[in-house]
Amino acid sequence: MIYDSSDIIAAPASGSGGAISVIRISGAGSVAMVSSLFIPGPENNDSERSLITARGFTLHYGYLKDRDAVIDEVIVSVFRQPHSYTGEDSVEISCHASPYIEHKIMEMLTGKGARAAMPGEFTRRAFINGRIDLSQAEAVADLIASESEASHRLAMNQMRGGFSQEINSLRDKLLQFASLIELELDFGDEDVDFADRDDLKATIGQVREVTETLAASFRLGNAIRNGFPVAIAGRSNSGKSTILNGLLRDDRAIVSDIPGTTRDAIEANLNIGGILFRFIDTAGLRETSDIIENLGIRKTYQKINEAMVVLLVTDATDGADIINATVEIILKQMGSAAKELVLIINKCDLLESGQCMELHKSVNLPTGVRSLMINAREEDEIARLRDLLLEITGSGDAGNTLIITNSRHYSALTSCSQALKRAEEGMADGIPFDLVAMDIRQATYYLGEITGAITPDEILRNIFKNFCIGK
Amino acid sequence: MIYDSSDIIAAPASGSGGAISVIRISGAGSVAMVSSLFIPGPENNDSERSLITARGFTLHYGYLKDRDAVIDEVIVSVFRQPHSYTGEDSVEISCHASPYIEHKIMEMLTGKGARAAMPGEFTRRAFINGRIDLSQAEAVADLIASESEASHRLAMNQMRGGFSQEINSLRDKLLQFASLIELELDFGDEDVDFADRDDLKATIGQVREVTETLAASFRLGNAIRNGFPVAIAGRSNSGKSTILNGLLRDDRAIVSDIPGTTRDAIEANLNIGGILFRFIDTAGLRETSDIIENLGIRKTYQKINEAMVVLLVTDATDGADIINATVEIILKQMGSAAKELVLIINKCDLLESGQCMELHKSVNLPTGVRSLMINAREEDEIARLRDLLLEITGSGDAGNTLIITNSRHYSALTSCSQALKRAEEGMADGIPFDLVAMDIRQATYYLGEITGAITPDEILRNIFKNFCIGK
Repeated sequence: MIYDSSDIIAAPASGSGGAISVIRISGAGSVAMVSSLFIPGPENNDSERSLITARGFTLHYGYLKDRDAVIDEVIVSVFRQPHSYTGEDSVEISCHASPYIEHKIMEMLTGKGARAAMPGEFTRRAFINGRIDLSQAEAVADLIASESEASHRLAMNQMRGGFSQEINSLRDKLLQFASLIELELDFGDEDVDFADRDDLKATIGQVREVTETLAASFRLGNAIRNGFPVAIAGRSNSGKSTILNGLLRDDRAIVSDIPGTTRDAIEANLNIGGILFRFIDTAGLRETSDIIENLGIRKTYQKINEAMVVLLVTDATDGADIINATVEIILKQMGSAAKELVLIINKCDLLESGQCMELHKSVNLPTGVRSLMINAREEDEIARLRDLLLEITGSGDAGNTLIITNSRHYSALTSCSQALKRAEEGMADGIPFDLVAMDIRQATYYLGEITGAITPDEILRNIFKNFCIGK
Repeated sequence: MIYDSSDIIAAPASGSGGAISVIRISGAGSVAMVSSLFIPGPENNDSERSLITARGFTLHYGYLKDRDAVIDEVIVSVFRQPHSYTGEDSVEISCHASPYIEHKIMEMLTGKGARAAMPGEFTRRAFINGRIDLSQAEAVADLIASESEASHRLAMNQMRGGFSQEINSLRDKLLQFASLIELELDFGDEDVDFADRDDLKATIGQVREVTETLAASFRLGNAIRNGFPVAIAGRSNSGKSTILNGLLRDDRAIVSDIPGTTRDAIEANLNIGGILFRFIDTAGLRETSDIIENLGIRKTYQKINEAMVVLLVTDATDGADIINATVEIILKQMGSAAKELVLIINKCDLLESGQCMELHKSVNLPTGVRSLMINAREEDEIARLRDLLLEITGSGDAGNTLIITNSRHYSALTSCSQALKRAEEGMADGIPFDLVAMDIRQATYYLGEITGAITPDEILRNIFKNFCIGK
């Protein structure tokens, strides 16, 4: 990919299949280019009849012409630098959403010297022209992809710069110390201490704590962005599907398919209370020697390992022994992985009153494992499960704390805190101060990668290639 | 469907899957409605900071807020009545193309009292407010659906009103006479002739000629709009698929699938020289008593009947007798239907030089049937076939004459010319003049249906229900 930021770039920016399409053009000279294809219609503000001299934030009604043929009746939006998305002169053509017209307009624009924009190139220009930083640019892509209120809120916060501010403030603190240390080293012979050692230690400790907290939020952030994986496990006929269907039926749950996967595995995306959950219905669990069945069960275990929450569905009528055995199998499989187990004792309505509670007491659960006695056929009882799931994800307050959702940020933060840890250890061990300074510089470098203050070309390429065209 | 034209209507107007989405809002008060959800950003024209008082044809950058939460960073376009698509005050919100954001904005708008627009409702309002007539409204839908240069050109001509002008001028002529006749009838006792009989006859004749010419253009117009159906027939192994593949391979041909049909039948859409062709590869033709095979062949005959052009592919090495027999079968099948047969003598390269020409001479073809001797494996020879197809469709000058593409117009025109014929016959038979006047009135009614001067509600409902939402 070759990006030349002096070119005029053009691309369809809206999706296909609607009533109108928007074609976006950006770069110095883009207004003149569109003007050369445009015949103003009779209905415009009188003051704005000429497109070529149009001010920013004006709309122009008229026709696009290819020699003598009218290609379409359009509305043209004019943006003047620096007040546009890219920071350059930009134009948006709103035309009829016909593939033929879209294709023809792109052809006319490239005929006049424009170049088809590469994925994310408009946003890349916004970054290059200092309109947004890198983490904000990434948030634009996340915003477009967001499927739930929670993921939307995270992306919007990041796009509006909350995360960048936090990172920049941490980086500034470290940079200040790094400069002082370097100054000290320059005056090495004179043995002066510009940087207060205790202050430095305290700052490094603080920054490390924040970066570690942020890095730790990635697991939650990633789940919010892509959906909380919840595995529904249990013996056959324990009511797994009834529970999934109950959740699906719930009015408040918005069901969406995951293309390509739903048909292969029983997997459903549910939006519960603004949080996206990915439910994975697994094959029935039981000890078996059948090879084929073992394969199915191995797959189940794999799904359990991928999940953040495991709903273990048991049948109250099976009795305590079988339930205990199932719990044991699951716990063994889960090992020490950081995931939440919820024991569901289903079909409690089939027992005499009070018996279910008795049964519950005789099940051996490790401390902290939640359990729920329900009849999955009842709406009210499914609602209790729904509330429990929201409680477990603890994402209700996701908007109030900083949560990272991006694996690139996660690894930069992790690298940063490792560098800071080395600096702390170095200071404790009394290693030469210029080595400590190197670790601190390294830490600032990693933080700079997040916002794009430091941006190797390769990072830029990787980020923007995942954008859609027209953005 | 209940249309209330005093409501504020809203709908996503762009397709799904892009970088930006456009939500369209129309109706008195729509600017104020959006303004109540909008916080202006720092970058706007100074003179246009307030959305609520904004002039038409202005753009506004800012944020949409749902109580305290920022839902998106948006660009809002303001149009003031009557200078908008619908003729009413209208707003377009250009937001990030996230399904969540789109859904949320629609929710906020309906929360403020807007109603989700029904398919075509914006265009319906443009019609009701006298911005466009009915035939122009229909052209909007055609324009969006157009897949080729030729169909685009027809839709654009119709949208720009060329067809409406013609219809209106015919209707005016008839209305004038109808009025004069009615005046005459009012003065019945006095035996005065306001309407000159010869003039009247001449006018009716003229109008009938034009309506019949227009009605006759429907077959071509429909083919241009939906693609020229071309059946490729012939005995097995005569090279039918080679010819189809040759046309598909051609650089100038743009292939597009017809969803849902391609997999069932071998059918391909090809854009050749701006004209859309629908090629239908049929089962091999031969006389057979096998029931199953006969079923296949019956299907082939059906395809042949649907086609406007039949390419009969024959194998030069089969010799004149077999070729003549195949031609005979096809001609019998085609009967007197108005379609074009093209005989292709394929594999001419396998014969000695000159032999193919000899063969051609001994094939019995009715006058006017075109034939082509080719080797379908050669690109140049496929190009000759391509040129021949363009010549047959004769649609190269489709832009210069009026061609109708709409079956509703076709039946209105046909009804009109039938009414005129009755009037002519009535006059010749000397029937009472008030009956002639009724036929003329009837004819003007049918013409009025086309442009919407006369529009039963049912017609309107039928037209707009086929639009996409947001248009």
